[in-house]
Amino acid sequence: MTLANRILTGDRRALARLITIVENQPTEAIPNLQLLYPHTGKALVIGITGPPGSGKSTLVDKLAKKLRQQKKTVGIIAVDPTSPFTGGAILGDRIRMQDLATDPGVYIRSMGTRGSLGGLAKAAHSAIEILDAAGMDYVFVETVGVGQSEVDIVGIADTTMVTLVPGLGDDIQTIKAGVLEIADIFVVNKADRPGADQVKMQLEMMLDLNTKEIKWRPPVLPTVANAGEGIADLLQGIKKHYRYLHDSGELRARRKARYKAEIMAIVEEGLRDRLLTFWAGEGKINTVVEEVIAQEKDPYTAAFELLGPFLAK
Amino acid sequence: MTLANRILTGDRRALARLITIVENQPTEAIPNLQLLYPHTGKALVIGITGPPGSGKSTLVDKLAKKLRQQKKTVGIIAVDPTSPFTGGAILGDRIRMQDLATDPGVYIRSMGTRGSLGGLAKAAHSAIEILDAAGMDYVFVETVGVGQSEVDIVGIADTTMVTLVPGLGDDIQTIKAGVLEIADIFVVNKADRPGADQVKMQLEMMLDLNTKEIKWRPPVLPTVANAGEGIADLLQGIKKHYRYLHDSGELRARRKARYKAEIMAIVEEGLRDRLLTFWAGEGKINTVVEEVIAQEKDPYTAAFELLGPFLAK
Repeated sequence: MTLANRILTGDRRALARLITIVENQPTEAIPNLQLLYPHTGKALVIGITGPPGSGKSTLVDKLAKKLRQQKKTVGIIAVDPTSPFTGGAILGDRIRMQDLATDPGVYIRSMGTRGSLGGLAKAAHSAIEILDAAGMDYVFVETVGVGQSEVDIVGIADTTMVTLVPGLGDDIQTIKAGVLEIADIFVVNKADRPGADQVKMQLEMMLDLNTKEIKWRPPVLPTVANAGEGIADLLQGIKKHYRYLHDSGELRARRKARYKAEIMAIVEEGLRDRLLTFWAGEGKINTVVEEVIAQEKDPYTAAFELLGPFLAK
Repeated sequence: MTLANRILTGDRRALARLITIVENQPTEAIPNLQLLYPHTGKALVIGITGPPGSGKSTLVDKLAKKLRQQKKTVGIIAVDPTSPFTGGAILGDRIRMQDLATDPGVYIRSMGTRGSLGGLAKAAHSAIEILDAAGMDYVFVETVGVGQSEVDIVGIADTTMVTLVPGLGDDIQTIKAGVLEIADIFVVNKADRPGADQVKMQLEMMLDLNTKEIKWRPPVLPTVANAGEGIADLLQGIKKHYRYLHDSGELRARRKARYKAEIMAIVEEGLRDRLLTFWAGEGKINTVVEEVIAQEKDPYTAAFELLGPFLAK
């Protein structure tokens, strides 16, 4: 029986195995991903991002528990870009989730990378598809760090939550237009701390300044995740956003953009493989690089020389 | 006269113009970049990265002033990944540099992106080459944010400085092996604040734990950039690292890796252009994406269908 078939019958070990293959030998995962694809499209994918220490894991933890009370199944993917500043942080956080880890209706998985965030985004996308096909009603994708990862999560998620906490000082000043464009829901976590109202007010003011015509204004929802406060309202907010996505046609548009990016990534990977075969490995490239370093030719001339015979063949 | 020739004769407006072209219509910059390439390779490229608020701009500011006293010319590229959390922050910081901006021996430039960090890294690389060809002795590349941008800066710089500040709390705990691999020099800025010695000590301990055979141990240098303290020692550290890079052959190895990545990026861009021409624009892709969304075929089958005729032609 294929891994895909085992996953469809609820085999958790097969699920874990396929995600590992996706991480390590993505090409070998393809036949199983192809088999699973017709069973996808049912899960709501929720991205959650925000600065380190803003309580993302705890929020996901509490949301997952609430969803379990409603008999929903939950997948959680913790994406760790192995950034020098964040590497390893997520796994530590995940210790808090041990009571969820024994729940058969919850599947938790950390995913890392060795340098290429593009590769990680692709692997995370495949993992979402696997969890979706495995029957998860909700899939949370949590990223650490302040940087490009937010942008990637937008490509992956149906709904993007951005978490903030009081006491970031000047940082709230640097939250500019960009965040308005990616956030579907703002969460002000640790809302029992001084300054929480101010963070909420500043966010609302920024949202007021947005003069673009918008169909969805991101709510700013206070939580105290540790104490479970505000979680029910947050879940309501997520469900409300889903209804908006569905009714407005935005869900379809987002998923279309996501698959377009995935297809292009597969195409480019295929081309890269073919190029390396054509050049008989890295040897040809290294020769050309030596010529560039010696300033015998410039990088453009070198690249065109490498590409020309491939295109002309 | 070409922009390249004007740049080589010291024309600043031509320099600014070419960097703008690199940002907006990179393909059109190619002939000028080809003309400039033989004049590159003389500048030392220094990347500086670290969390927001760690004083990167001020450090670069003070280093630039010190280098000007030594009659060296300095280029500064402030890379702003337009992350939701950092967007716009750099330009604010740059106001501090106004006294440098009127110095003809200094050229300061902010560069942003609209989503693709890969594109930004490539544009920054081209900007470095332009400043290098224009005769800058030192080029600083400063990035904001904690995320993928550090990894990219490593690809771009000869020497990578990582800045930290006391008072990040738990964050020092999350600085794991990754940062040891990218940092050539650690700077503990705001070293007059409580906890600076502890940050230094923790870094030194982490460096002690590195059991890999290393030829260069990154120094941990305290600074109070605002007050100009520690800047002379930091500059000594940078020059010492340059001698190490040069004498060990590491400079050549790093630049080789950098040009290899640049050549591959040019090749892949060329392929993408050719693919779009082959498919007669986006139409064909959109049709296939619709079929994938309708679950008539999976993304892999779709990608192979797109790629097959191109490779077979």
